[in-house]
Amino acid sequence: MGEFELIRHYFAAAPCAQGGEGVALGIGDDCALLDLAAGEQLAISTDTLVAGVHFPAVCDPLLLGQRSLAVAASDLAAMGASAIGFTLALTLPEVGPHWLAAFADGLGRMAHRCRMTLIGGDTTRGPLSITVTVFGRVPVGQALRRSGAQPGELLCVGGCLGNAAGALPLVLGERAAPEPVAGPLLAHYWSPLPQLNLGQSLRGRASAALDISDGLLADCGHIAKASGVALEVNLEQVPVSSELQAFLGLEGARQAALSGGDDYVLAFTIAADTLAAIPDLVRSAMTVHVIGRVLEGQGVTLRDSQGQDITPRQRGYQHFRETP
Amino acid sequence: MGEFELIRHYFAAAPCAQGGEGVALGIGDDCALLDLAAGEQLAISTDTLVAGVHFPAVCDPLLLGQRSLAVAASDLAAMGASAIGFTLALTLPEVGPHWLAAFADGLGRMAHRCRMTLIGGDTTRGPLSITVTVFGRVPVGQALRRSGAQPGELLCVGGCLGNAAGALPLVLGERAAPEPVAGPLLAHYWSPLPQLNLGQSLRGRASAALDISDGLLADCGHIAKASGVALEVNLEQVPVSSELQAFLGLEGARQAALSGGDDYVLAFTIAADTLAAIPDLVRSAMTVHVIGRVLEGQGVTLRDSQGQDITPRQRGYQHFRETP
Repeated sequence: MGEFELIRHYFAAAPCAQGGEGVALGIGDDCALLDLAAGEQLAISTDTLVAGVHFPAVCDPLLLGQRSLAVAASDLAAMGASAIGFTLALTLPEVGPHWLAAFADGLGRMAHRCRMTLIGGDTTRGPLSITVTVFGRVPVGQALRRSGAQPGELLCVGGCLGNAAGALPLVLGERAAPEPVAGPLLAHYWSPLPQLNLGQSLRGRASAALDISDGLLADCGHIAKASGVALEVNLEQVPVSSELQAFLGLEGARQAALSGGDDYVLAFTIAADTLAAIPDLVRSAMTVHVIGRVLEGQGVTLRDSQGQDITPRQRGYQHFRETP
Repeated sequence: MGEFELIRHYFAAAPCAQGGEGVALGIGDDCALLDLAAGEQLAISTDTLVAGVHFPAVCDPLLLGQRSLAVAASDLAAMGASAIGFTLALTLPEVGPHWLAAFADGLGRMAHRCRMTLIGGDTTRGPLSITVTVFGRVPVGQALRRSGAQPGELLCVGGCLGNAAGALPLVLGERAAPEPVAGPLLAHYWSPLPQLNLGQSLRGRASAALDISDGLLADCGHIAKASGVALEVNLEQVPVSSELQAFLGLEGARQAALSGGDDYVLAFTIAADTLAAIPDLVRSAMTVHVIGRVLEGQGVTLRDSQGQDITPRQRGYQHFRETP
C-alpha cells in the first residue's frame, strides 16, 4: 500500500467519515452516494485554500483543518441549507504523520460542530492546497438567494464584523497583542463558525442572504446587484467586537468591518415585521444586528450618524485571497 | 472587478455552464442547487490534477481541460450513474487569457460529450492545480459497487487497456512515434472517454464495477478485496490496441495494460448468462472483452495461455500520480 493510499485509509477510518444522515455510501468506492428526501434540493459549494495565498505556509495544521471546512460550510449557511457532508481534495508536498493527524483532528472537530460527514476525496502530491466541496439539503424553493431583496426591508448581519481581517497581522506574526485581545481575534480567523442555524431559521423569512467573505460593502454590492435594489449601510450600526476595537481603535475596527474579508457572518435582507416575529430566543442567540435598509435604486451607500454619504470612492475589495 | 472575478464571470458565461437537466441553480450564488427525482441517489466523486505530477507543467490547455473532466466523470461511469454536472476548483499562478480560453474550450467539449453542466467552483491564485467534483444520479440500490462479485461470474473490461500508460513517453516528449501510432495513443491519454453509457447499461446486470485508474491488476485487487473473492486474469484475453503494440511490442503493450494506470476503462464482473442477454448492439458497440473469471478465495492471479500462474510478485501499481 502506497503512502497516499495509507492516507486515504487514515481519513476513511476517521470518526467524521462514519455514518451520517443522508449518506448512503461514504468513502471507499468510486463515488459517494447521498439520499435526499422528497421535496428537497441539494446545495453544493466548493472552496480552495492555497498555502501562502489563503493561509501562511507555516501554521497550526489543526487550525487549518478547522478553517478549511468552516469556510466552505459557511456557503451552506448562506443558502439556508442543512449540512450533510463534504469531500476533501488534499494536495501535500510530503506526508508528515503529525501534520496529518492534527489536520484531520481540526477537520473532524469542525465536522462534528457542523454535523457533517467526510464522504470522499482525493489525496495527491504537490504544493499544499485544500479544496473542500460541501453538500447540504434545503426544501425546494426555500434556498436563500441573493436576488430577493425588496425596497423597504431591513439590512441585517449575523454578528460582529472585521475580526478575521483585523486578526491578519496577528496571523502573519507582524504584530502582537495581549492574549485577551489576540485570543478571540485569532479564534475568529482560524475557526469561523458557519451560521448554519441562523441560515435555517431565515428560510422563508429573509428575502436575500449571503455570507460575508469579500467584506461587508463588497458583499452588500452583490445583493444589491442581484436584487436590482440599493442598499444603505449606517456606519454606526455596524457591529464591531470590543477586542477588535482594543486592537485597532474604533476607526480601524470599522474599516476592517467594512472592507475586510473572511468574516463568514451572514448578511441578509428581511421585512421589519418578519424580523420582529422571529422568536426573541433565536434573535438574541444569533446576535442579529440591523445595519441599514433596502431602497429603490442601485449600489451601496454608506452613511454616518448625521446621514452624510461617506461611501468610499475606491473600494479595494481584494481580500487576502487575491492579494498574496 | 478583480481579475479572478472576471474569470468567474468568464466561466459562468460559458456554454457548458448554462441550463442542464437536474440543475435548479448554477453559478452565481453561494451554492448551486440540484434536483433529484424520487427514487434517485446522488453520486459524487472528486479528482485533483497537479501540474508536474499528474500532467506536464507545459501542455496544451485544451487537452488538459478535456482530461480534467474526463478523469472525474469516469467515476460516475464506474457507478452506473447518469452525469448531471460538475464544479471546478482552478488554481492558477497567473491569468493568461489564451490559456484560459483554451482550457475552458477543452472543458466545455468534454462537458458537452458527457452532457454535464458546470454548476460552480472557485478560482484562486497558486501553483497550477485542478480539482473537479462530479455529480450524477442513479436509481436507489442500483449503483455499481466494488463489492458484489460472485464466484462463477466472468471478469470483463470495456475496451483496450494500456494506451494511456503507453502514451506517457510521448506525452513527456521522451519518445516520438509516427502519427498513425502517436495520434491514437495521445488522444487516449488526453481525452479518455468516460464510459457513461456502458456503466448505465450495466446497472442491475454487473455485480461489481470500477474504472481502471491504478492499472488492471491493482484495480482487480480492489474488486477482489471489496467482494471477498479471487479474480483470475488470462493474459492472452487482455485487449491491447494495435497502436500500442506497434509502439511497444506485444510484451510491452501487455505490461502497460496490466500495470499502467489512467485507462479509465470500466472493469466489471457479471454472470455469463446476464452478459449473453445484453443486446448485441450494446455489447459490440462497447467492445466488451471477457478477460477472466471470479473464483472463491482472495487476491488476483494472472495466467498465461497454458494456465500457468505468472502473477508478478511485486506489483508496482504506483502510477504517474504517485511517482512524480
